[in-house]
Amino acid sequence: MTIRTDLEYALELDRRDELAHFRDEFVIDEPDLIYLDGNSLGRLPKRTAARMQAVVEYEWGRRLVRGWGDSWFTAPQRVGAKIAQLIGAAADEVLVADSTSVDFFKLVVAALRARPDRTRIVADDLNFPSDLYVLQGALDLMKPDRRLAIAHSTDGLTVSNDALAGAIDQDTALVALTHTAFKSGYVYDMPAITRMAHQAGALMLWDLSHSVGALPLALNACRVDLAVGCTYKYLNGGPGAPAFLYVRRDLQDSLLNPIWGWFGQKGQFDFELDYQPGPGISRFLAGTPNILSMAAVEPAIDLLLEAGIDRLRAKSIKQTEYLIGLWAELLQPLGVRLNSPRDANQRGSHVSLGHPEGLRIDRALIEELKVIPDFRYPDNIRLGIAPIYTSFAEVHAAITRLRRVIVERLYEKYPRERLAVT
Amino acid sequence: MTIRTDLEYALELDRRDELAHFRDEFVIDEPDLIYLDGNSLGRLPKRTAARMQAVVEYEWGRRLVRGWGDSWFTAPQRVGAKIAQLIGAAADEVLVADSTSVDFFKLVVAALRARPDRTRIVADDLNFPSDLYVLQGALDLMKPDRRLAIAHSTDGLTVSNDALAGAIDQDTALVALTHTAFKSGYVYDMPAITRMAHQAGALMLWDLSHSVGALPLALNACRVDLAVGCTYKYLNGGPGAPAFLYVRRDLQDSLLNPIWGWFGQKGQFDFELDYQPGPGISRFLAGTPNILSMAAVEPAIDLLLEAGIDRLRAKSIKQTEYLIGLWAELLQPLGVRLNSPRDANQRGSHVSLGHPEGLRIDRALIEELKVIPDFRYPDNIRLGIAPIYTSFAEVHAAITRLRRVIVERLYEKYPRERLAVT
Repeated sequence: MTIRTDLEYALELDRRDELAHFRDEFVIDEPDLIYLDGNSLGRLPKRTAARMQAVVEYEWGRRLVRGWGDSWFTAPQRVGAKIAQLIGAAADEVLVADSTSVDFFKLVVAALRARPDRTRIVADDLNFPSDLYVLQGALDLMKPDRRLAIAHSTDGLTVSNDALAGAIDQDTALVALTHTAFKSGYVYDMPAITRMAHQAGALMLWDLSHSVGALPLALNACRVDLAVGCTYKYLNGGPGAPAFLYVRRDLQDSLLNPIWGWFGQKGQFDFELDYQPGPGISRFLAGTPNILSMAAVEPAIDLLLEAGIDRLRAKSIKQTEYLIGLWAELLQPLGVRLNSPRDANQRGSHVSLGHPEGLRIDRALIEELKVIPDFRYPDNIRLGIAPIYTSFAEVHAAITRLRRVIVERLYEKYPRERLAVT
Repeated sequence: MTIRTDLEYALELDRRDELAHFRDEFVIDEPDLIYLDGNSLGRLPKRTAARMQAVVEYEWGRRLVRGWGDSWFTAPQRVGAKIAQLIGAAADEVLVADSTSVDFFKLVVAALRARPDRTRIVADDLNFPSDLYVLQGALDLMKPDRRLAIAHSTDGLTVSNDALAGAIDQDTALVALTHTAFKSGYVYDMPAITRMAHQAGALMLWDLSHSVGALPLALNACRVDLAVGCTYKYLNGGPGAPAFLYVRRDLQDSLLNPIWGWFGQKGQFDFELDYQPGPGISRFLAGTPNILSMAAVEPAIDLLLEAGIDRLRAKSIKQTEYLIGLWAELLQPLGVRLNSPRDANQRGSHVSLGHPEGLRIDRALIEELKVIPDFRYPDNIRLGIAPIYTSFAEVHAAITRLRRVIVERLYEKYPRERLAVT
């Protein structure tokens, strides 16, 4: 099926978009800049700017230490309860605190200790590398004679359920996967894979960083044990915003956070000398939460809840389909490959396009034509759709400018070795 | 020696204070509020409010993901290098990232692994409880048959060097202490105790949370191995601001952070599948740093560097001496005890006053007379001096109002069981 490649069609799609007005909720004061990197760092909501001023100048500046009693103490749970609504979890199953890596470490170690007779962790080679590092580090600490078991992708884009099934055995304590692959955008089959882990008696841990806020999740319905995710991508929580972690309620009292900090202590201000883990999800806190960073997360999540995750997903699919349609017409003939699944049900909210000169094209798009995608080795130009603020006209502009970079060879002035960041 | 208890004398001390003008650098828009809890949460510097607006609205809002390349990537090291100047360390020995508990955990586990044949950790019962919890958790994870060795205080205010010496033996992997005790303000003998640890072949880890920014530290001169500290107390970095960690340079390449996140990886954006620890201090990073919270820390440290840590310490001593002088005249006769060392060289920048009705007095001070101290069980009313903004007139007001609470029994309407926070 071919699609119309004219700008007028994009504008028509925008006019028909029932979520279009949410774009006005964001600070967008450089209209010609096409920002398709919301899957790395989401845009700034206007209400967040106002909220940050209030938390700095009023809550910290005037209320001072009283801010803890006013609202700060409960922030990890309060913001966690909002994220719970986006991921199909109960309010008391999610916390916001620490970084994704630290939260991931807590849950991985907790899982290994919950299966003391098992020594195997299963991951795959499409996992976000930082997760692989944390898994390797946890094994090095606790099972130094064991190496991480890696299921392999055959096409670099997806890992089959069969490959995963083959890696999971009766010695497996934990299966840890990235739900939406950071390069290809491939979305794993959460129900089936979680079931496979459980059938082998293993715990299942999903990293939702590239999924949360982009597509509906059903952690409880899938009986997922553990999850983490970041809040600075589709949740628009700001640079380095604190991560969230999920522990299914019936597991909370039997799992132990290895970092025994005072915020996870039962009766924190009794200052007892012996650690006693707090009730429920609270034991997965460690030190004092970052209040300023946390404050930026909350209003951004409210916005997503107002838009509704099902409507956001529907728009995201329309936009990635539209993008892929434009690619087929305008870029495929120039040798650009589609490095993301063609089936929308297997695809998150970013599309990776491959070209041998991908890194230089990425630089030229940024420097010459004001399009910001990002780049992932070896050849992926990632175009992230954030349906809450991305317009169809932006998708059109990105693809037509990308075509121009290739046709006019604008990338040739950029060296190959330049480091791409984030 | 008695001192003058009249307000005029306090005002005269303020007029003679060469650091008095730094008070104007802070947001203080409720002049009658006497804030003596800067040892829990420091006040908001005016330049921080301006900086936060810039980082939110310009760096995030306009620069978007490009902010990483602009200045964010290097923030943990850049801010760490500034803190290094306050603690007698080299620029490449300090990082800002994660919470104090998480950083403490990283270093404790690294230390235990660096002494694999040893099983003992020595702490004491004046340690900040959260540190004790982390130590217990690390032992539970790595040496489950061992309990934390605790040296005991005989007076509740100090722990003698002899008591510590008695606890450190040839099986000791690590000695971990809070440099300034959070209740009494007692300052430990860093050179002597570090030497004791080293003589036994143990590593020494200091928690500097109640010291940094309040008194000069000389980590390198004392050959301290490891340290952590928080930035939201005397460093005025904001609620839950990220902590710092110090690893002496010659140890950096032999110690291993147990949390193997991507920010600690060599060549982070190569996205190799196998972890390889980064060079130097960088390997002690884990996940993505909290940029918004970090941004608030930097201008606050600049202020302390401008004031100079030696001048700040000199003023702090003058102010705690003045406070203790007023206590001797006005409060001791009413049965209020001094729960801090009388010797200024053994005292940090807060003074604890003890009274059987301490908790209720604390509440009455806050609610009735607009003085904000804090309270620590069983009976400590902590009065924190932040010499960069605390005035002598405020110290005078706090003590005279405290006297009024007791004389007029203003505390009697407050219940004993009310929870004191932070």
